[in-house]
Amino acid sequence: MNIHMILLSGGSGKRLWPLSNEIRSKQFLRVLKDGRGGYESMLQRVFRQLRAEFPAAHVVVATGAAQREQILSQLGDAVDIVSEPQRRDTFPAIALAATFLHDRCGSPDEDVVVVLPVDVFAEQHYFTTIGRMCEVVEAGIAELVLMGIAPTFASSRFGYMVPGKPAEGCALIERFVEKPSLELAADLIAGGALWNGGVFACELGYLMEIVRSHVGTLSFSRLHDSYGTLEKTSFDYAVVEKATSVAMVPYNGMWKDLGTWDTLAQEIGPQGIGEQLLSTTTEGTVVINELGIPVVVVGTRNLIVATSPDGILVSDAQPGVELKPLVDTLGHPPRFEQLRWGTRTILDRTCDGRDGLREIRNVELVALQEVSITGTVGTILVMVCTDGMGTWTIGGDTRQVEPGTTIHVAGGASGVLHSDMGMRLVEIAVPDMENFQKNS
Amino acid sequence: MNIHMILLSGGSGKRLWPLSNEIRSKQFLRVLKDGRGGYESMLQRVFRQLRAEFPAAHVVVATGAAQREQILSQLGDAVDIVSEPQRRDTFPAIALAATFLHDRCGSPDEDVVVVLPVDVFAEQHYFTTIGRMCEVVEAGIAELVLMGIAPTFASSRFGYMVPGKPAEGCALIERFVEKPSLELAADLIAGGALWNGGVFACELGYLMEIVRSHVGTLSFSRLHDSYGTLEKTSFDYAVVEKATSVAMVPYNGMWKDLGTWDTLAQEIGPQGIGEQLLSTTTEGTVVINELGIPVVVVGTRNLIVATSPDGILVSDAQPGVELKPLVDTLGHPPRFEQLRWGTRTILDRTCDGRDGLREIRNVELVALQEVSITGTVGTILVMVCTDGMGTWTIGGDTRQVEPGTTIHVAGGASGVLHSDMGMRLVEIAVPDMENFQKNS
Repeated sequence: MNIHMILLSGGSGKRLWPLSNEIRSKQFLRVLKDGRGGYESMLQRVFRQLRAEFPAAHVVVATGAAQREQILSQLGDAVDIVSEPQRRDTFPAIALAATFLHDRCGSPDEDVVVVLPVDVFAEQHYFTTIGRMCEVVEAGIAELVLMGIAPTFASSRFGYMVPGKPAEGCALIERFVEKPSLELAADLIAGGALWNGGVFACELGYLMEIVRSHVGTLSFSRLHDSYGTLEKTSFDYAVVEKATSVAMVPYNGMWKDLGTWDTLAQEIGPQGIGEQLLSTTTEGTVVINELGIPVVVVGTRNLIVATSPDGILVSDAQPGVELKPLVDTLGHPPRFEQLRWGTRTILDRTCDGRDGLREIRNVELVALQEVSITGTVGTILVMVCTDGMGTWTIGGDTRQVEPGTTIHVAGGASGVLHSDMGMRLVEIAVPDMENFQKNS
Repeated sequence: MNIHMILLSGGSGKRLWPLSNEIRSKQFLRVLKDGRGGYESMLQRVFRQLRAEFPAAHVVVATGAAQREQILSQLGDAVDIVSEPQRRDTFPAIALAATFLHDRCGSPDEDVVVVLPVDVFAEQHYFTTIGRMCEVVEAGIAELVLMGIAPTFASSRFGYMVPGKPAEGCALIERFVEKPSLELAADLIAGGALWNGGVFACELGYLMEIVRSHVGTLSFSRLHDSYGTLEKTSFDYAVVEKATSVAMVPYNGMWKDLGTWDTLAQEIGPQGIGEQLLSTTTEGTVVINELGIPVVVVGTRNLIVATSPDGILVSDAQPGVELKPLVDTLGHPPRFEQLRWGTRTILDRTCDGRDGLREIRNVELVALQEVSITGTVGTILVMVCTDGMGTWTIGGDTRQVEPGTTIHVAGGASGVLHSDMGMRLVEIAVPDMENFQKNS
């Protein structure tokens, strides 16, 4: 059986500010213990668990263009990435990835496609369950197979799936109930209903039929070019609700959304991450410190303290208010950026309005990577290497870069920085005074 | 009447970490509202209040060498500074300042000397009381005149002064009681005893007699040179307890020690200092943020959050444990330094042991100031101007410095940076790789 996994990587957001921001989504935060003494992100964890179950499966990450570099930096060449030109909803994103499989990879109709979210936090058994879903698809028991999560409490936030006729290793779904009242939810659970966990499996051919009827083409490039005109439709609405037969395979195990600080802090545990010092009188306080300076906590109870180059959060563990609307009012551009070739962190930024922006940035290049640097007119750009070795190529000339080497990049000029063993630089951008004097 | 004020500026410490550190004492923190929309330090506040009462008084700050630059940067040329070559106790420090008045300034014996701590937080009336103390000295009522603080509660932390015979505008002191039990303290207060606030007034000649008998010289330079051999003795022990007649002038008003976070935070108030955003569900939380990134607080109660380039403190407002022993274990060198000519802040610091220290520092020069920069052998030093204008002079050559200008300082070389209108630079220090290769 040929299996393709489409990992949906969406949702930039600020619910985990200051670690997450407009460009750094929760799935990229390296805050989960990897079992080998280090840390991994949700994306890396899901990919590791998936590989353990499906060593040969073809993996495609469906995402927005803004996440491409971060995915490359965390998973490398082990996956294909299909970037949406614009953010639409889940159906267009899955349709684009399926068309990629059909049109670009030439995958046959009988291949099995699994769609799953990238920000799920579950046991390995979750991926074994996906394996069973694939077997149900292959057995032709239903057009579409979903994962049913065993509910742990009556929730009105989830969709419920009511089982009908049992089949081999699964049950056919009788009906769906979206976000019921708490009372109805309790009744549904008593009747054996499961949560819809957002994992789907079907044959590629089945999916392509639906894509053809919705968008009128099976050409990847045509779909890509007209992407902005596609209707914003969810996969649930476009596919699941219209399927004539849907089965579900139950999963009874740990399944969490680590998308808010209280759940994530619980997972990280009291030892926290990063440099910190807690008085013995401190209780239930979790510190995640990404800054290079210590966090000292004295006598607090049930707090979450999180720091990053973007800011500092001190929050009650059960805050009772949403973080996102609060930090939305800050209006600071993100200070930390993870890119394919490394990271860029703003260390200091002043913008006095009089004559523009001054920034001091730390740039880290991974070994054997390169990055193109272009000077902006009206800005003086100076780079000073602080660690590592590499080269700087501009206008056909290449010179060695080592600690202490200074690089001036004129406005409009463009060069390529290449690192041998990994390299760090300080990047300083200041307004061009001559240009300023002309303007004032 | 000629009055000399000796301000005692001591005590570096970490009780207000991360704002205070080994080199930045609490009296230098600009966290008190100056009544004109800005902030001032305890030192600046005391000096302002003192000047309002004594426009013509001669002011000497007695301090350690490490504080000299900070005092100059906050008070400028308005005061004389007498720096102890080593830290001893209060008697040697006051003896050195008094000898400075006698020997260097040629002040006559009948001049009045007032000794007061620099870190007192009191009303203007406190300084009016000092004026009355000077009048009592001039009237010859007692050899030594002390300020008696009206107690606000029974405390076993203070010294008590029991009044005897009343005199013109004061009372002679019958006896001193050091740190009594709480029970005895209550009895003393009921009997009219006052706290010893550490403010003394006497004639210079009286003080010089005691200095002569203790150290055998009235020469400032001789005393300065032998300073390290002087006994560590308090002024209370050497002078107050041995005086034949001591009077006290009462002060009944606000008198606080802002030396711990709970008292300082109360004074700063809920609006805090620096960039911050508090959810409406937050209660009794004070944020003092010296970093250039926002602090967001959600749903906390009775907290103090303080940030500086040295670190981040999150503490219960009544922590119940002492901060100093906790932060003493951190062992980080201070990242923020205030100097006569400006400030130096470490933005990023890595020390990997393998090949030494890498630092990125922000340097700010005040207008018309200059600083000498010397390169260290084994280190490459690069400076990049980010704001302002000035000059760089090395080996007889002077060149213009403006945003984008790069300065390389070789190991052992030394130059002078001069700022015209104020100037900011990034200073980058990295190990010299050639030197490293030789060593390894």
